[in-house]
Amino acid sequence: MRISQLSEAAGLPVGTVKFYLRTGLLPAGRSINATQAAYDESHLGRLRLIRALIEVGRLSVAEIQSVLSAIDNPEQTTIDGLQAVHQVSTLKGRSPAEADVAVARELVAGLGWATDDDSPHLEGLARALSALASVGEPPTPTRLRVYAEAASHVARNDVDWVFDSPEDTQVERALVSAVLWEALLSSLRRLAAENQAARRRSGVPAPRMSVPSA
Amino acid sequence: MRISQLSEAAGLPVGTVKFYLRTGLLPAGRSINATQAAYDESHLGRLRLIRALIEVGRLSVAEIQSVLSAIDNPEQTTIDGLQAVHQVSTLKGRSPAEADVAVARELVAGLGWATDDDSPHLEGLARALSALASVGEPPTPTRLRVYAEAASHVARNDVDWVFDSPEDTQVERALVSAVLWEALLSSLRRLAAENQAARRRSGVPAPRMSVPSA
Repeated sequence: MRISQLSEAAGLPVGTVKFYLRTGLLPAGRSINATQAAYDESHLGRLRLIRALIEVGRLSVAEIQSVLSAIDNPEQTTIDGLQAVHQVSTLKGRSPAEADVAVARELVAGLGWATDDDSPHLEGLARALSALASVGEPPTPTRLRVYAEAASHVARNDVDWVFDSPEDTQVERALVSAVLWEALLSSLRRLAAENQAARRRSGVPAPRMSVPSA
Repeated sequence: MRISQLSEAAGLPVGTVKFYLRTGLLPAGRSINATQAAYDESHLGRLRLIRALIEVGRLSVAEIQSVLSAIDNPEQTTIDGLQAVHQVSTLKGRSPAEADVAVARELVAGLGWATDDDSPHLEGLARALSALASVGEPPTPTRLRVYAEAASHVARNDVDWVFDSPEDTQVERALVSAVLWEALLSSLRRLAAENQAARRRSGVPAPRMSVPSA
């Protein structure tokens, strides 16, 4: 299809499609002549992925560039691609104090989780723990455990979903999982809280969930 | 204490503290004379909350204004305050198509959750579901169920944590839960995925978590 048809199929202005071509987010089409190119379903799929990452995942164009170039580069291994997803899904922020990172590392070790010693996500955890302590609400062990159980429950499913798929789709699935399923979890958590609050008000408790430790 | 001591205790420049005073995020101190005021621990606590909401929660000054004014206004009830937290924690974005919201509403009803018919969080769920479908990865019922179980597991704990506290702290706890515990869950999910991936590579599966339905 031509660029005008591609833009119509994706529901995007031609100018936006051209911007994605210029920035390399969208691979070039097959040249037909000096001024025209043909696009196929793979281009349409890519445009939909870009829009989902921007609109729901709130990723920047630079972040999407870094992760898509890992997907597109035939020299890169799946491991490289997963690493790029890992980086792009790292929560950004001020570097936490080393003492806060040590607390986060200890917490993760206490859960029996095998994570990278220098995982960038330890910084995000350290920031959250330190923020909670600073507002006078340091997490109780019980509440941390409930959160760790929930995180483990979804993560097991995430990892199986990514690695049980064919190797050439694993990086894209890891990206979708890290970004779009994250947004889905946030919305579900808010709706679940509405449900629990409504049940509390009406005096009808929901069955307490018993989750064996991770 | 004087503003210079307050700023030192909070680890913030005096100019920043003055900005929070001007914008009303920080209540005025007790006037000592025409140019000086005294501040106490409550001001320090408020500064720490503001910093946590900005640095970890990524809230804007306008969002913090709207929720703190609900906390500070003695005319407002706890319900008003909780409503303000609800609004500020709503995921922003383009309005989804009505058909997508209908799918989200149906999903929530299928889970047996009692939520508001016009809950703003249904829009966030609709956007996430529609984004997943658009990239060719519509959620399977199993995966949705795992996510709903995890959301329900943390939400039950959240709601108890908020409503089992004295009424004058409930709004602040709801805010801390919606914003700071959200950041904590994101980091834990990423670290749990590292753990699950490491176990998968080493061939030592983590115990599968069996969560009874919510």
